[in-house]
Amino acid sequence: MAIQLLREIDEQPGALARLLAMRRHDVREVAARIRAFDPAWVVIAARGTSDNAARYAQYVFGAFNRLSVALAVPSLFTLYNAPPQLGRALTIGISQSGQSPDVVAVIEEARRQGGVTLAITNDATSPLAAAAEHNLLLASGTEHAVAATKTYTNQLLLLAMLSVELAGDERRGAELELVPQAVEAALGACDGIAEVAMHYMNAGRFLVLGRGFNYCTAFEIALKMKETSYVLAEPYSPADLLHGPVAMLDYGFPVVLVATAGHASDDVGALQAVLDGRGARTIAFSDRDDVLARATSGIRLSPGVPEWLSPIVTVVPGQMWARALAMAKGLDSDRPRGLQKVTLTR
Amino acid sequence: MAIQLLREIDEQPGALARLLAMRRHDVREVAARIRAFDPAWVVIAARGTSDNAARYAQYVFGAFNRLSVALAVPSLFTLYNAPPQLGRALTIGISQSGQSPDVVAVIEEARRQGGVTLAITNDATSPLAAAAEHNLLLASGTEHAVAATKTYTNQLLLLAMLSVELAGDERRGAELELVPQAVEAALGACDGIAEVAMHYMNAGRFLVLGRGFNYCTAFEIALKMKETSYVLAEPYSPADLLHGPVAMLDYGFPVVLVATAGHASDDVGALQAVLDGRGARTIAFSDRDDVLARATSGIRLSPGVPEWLSPIVTVVPGQMWARALAMAKGLDSDRPRGLQKVTLTR
Repeated sequence: MAIQLLREIDEQPGALARLLAMRRHDVREVAARIRAFDPAWVVIAARGTSDNAARYAQYVFGAFNRLSVALAVPSLFTLYNAPPQLGRALTIGISQSGQSPDVVAVIEEARRQGGVTLAITNDATSPLAAAAEHNLLLASGTEHAVAATKTYTNQLLLLAMLSVELAGDERRGAELELVPQAVEAALGACDGIAEVAMHYMNAGRFLVLGRGFNYCTAFEIALKMKETSYVLAEPYSPADLLHGPVAMLDYGFPVVLVATAGHASDDVGALQAVLDGRGARTIAFSDRDDVLARATSGIRLSPGVPEWLSPIVTVVPGQMWARALAMAKGLDSDRPRGLQKVTLTR
Repeated sequence: MAIQLLREIDEQPGALARLLAMRRHDVREVAARIRAFDPAWVVIAARGTSDNAARYAQYVFGAFNRLSVALAVPSLFTLYNAPPQLGRALTIGISQSGQSPDVVAVIEEARRQGGVTLAITNDATSPLAAAAEHNLLLASGTEHAVAATKTYTNQLLLLAMLSVELAGDERRGAELELVPQAVEAALGACDGIAEVAMHYMNAGRFLVLGRGFNYCTAFEIALKMKETSYVLAEPYSPADLLHGPVAMLDYGFPVVLVATAGHASDDVGALQAVLDGRGARTIAFSDRDDVLARATSGIRLSPGVPEWLSPIVTVVPGQMWARALAMAKGLDSDRPRGLQKVTLTR
């Protein structure tokens, strides 16, 4: 069961290494074109898993390229026929298949207005690739499982590579090379995850918490859980949680916590105290001993991954966790009910 | 029980009418300053309920002012000390209390960079009001209940007024006057809501669906449900739902559906067919007979509210629904566990 999904999860170190080897030149060329255009801000159109890659871009382009990133509002283009002005923006469409008409509509309009446009897809022959002025291909190999895994981590790495080239930052460029091996190590750390999942086989609702660069990781793990295990898993930054939803935490409420070393986890101790005070059960993905010691269960990640690249690594135990939870519930995560690989929305 | 919350829900028509009467001049003056600055895009910093008002701004500024709206990433300012460039943007901070340090930090940085800044708060003496160059006050009167209601609808109306003045649009300006009475009518339509809520007293998880202008309404109703009833209620646009989370819908799954007449509900029939196919139970807030006929239960709203203003109206039965659900569960929605009125996050 879930053979396809597991195979593609396992392919990630290879796919990431291939992307680094094959796309550096393309990324450099596109970055030069974008720098020459000098965009005032960035707009990203994406859906589902790709939208979580866009959330990563908000942090990496913000922190290192000083670019403000807006997530596009596709219905302004498709329902209301009232697109905003994009002539001074860099507009990026992210889609594994490159098929979604709403994402294509945003890119077409941005290009019509004279903005600079970039498609990030896994299919060079897709409508999205045709619509954009510039293209960067994911080099993930065909993805068969409905739940996206290796295309997501390659989307993140490609955005990280683009940030490096836009900034001309050699130090961060060297750090990119650490990623494939760190993902390999994360896969190796997941041996006990099936046993952990057995404790939650009857749970129907979860919170997934992540902050800073790993805000996207919380969204992506929650999405994998919903797709494969049919649970209601809601992603939150700890800050937003405290502005209301913390009220729903009660005894035994399961909380997935992503907290690797870095600025975003400086005050994770205070968060864990709140969770403990409510009697929540915590499943932690972390490289910090104190976080793991305080959690109900956890997956220990290898230390040393730079915070800005950690989302490419921390999502991996989350993918394994979602699959393990599905198996614990007796579900086939290769065939989520009601989903197709390509979804066409307007 | 829930006397305070109910009182403030009921105060909304009066608070909206007061805002229209008292703030038109201020809004016009601020709009003139913003037009003179000619921002390239808009950034909004907000948390919780105010963040849902920011989601409304994405549609109203996008559709009528051709402005792309980015939701700020506060941790770039507070955790990473790496703020993006905001010198050509309009940056707006929205906060009922005006206290949240992360929202204040975004406004301070934007002002330091020479951008145009605006605070929308209910407290003229707050740090947020002091930080921004321009201020627009909500005129909601003091809000005592922890769950925000009348400050939210006034935030929406103030953003709508600002959009009208930025565009110099007299037709839409006249439509604003319809809002207080439409909200009054919506309150009158909620008589049967306690009975509906009794059917869901044991439900722990919900989806809340809204699209286009009412995407923010789905978020805000879900937040009210989490704050007052401790249920896991996740907001979705129907388009995002079909990209994955639809898998979790099973027989009897409760879905709150916001669908008033307009472009965003053109294909709501197809969505209801999907929901029916999964055996979901639907609670609809709508002014459309066909939507209500197909739903398990519903609240009938008066027709004739322009789509762009409908979020100020459709959230009201959602507030009443959240309160009714809390009462059905035997909870005191005036005192949500673990929440304070003012939350300070960094």
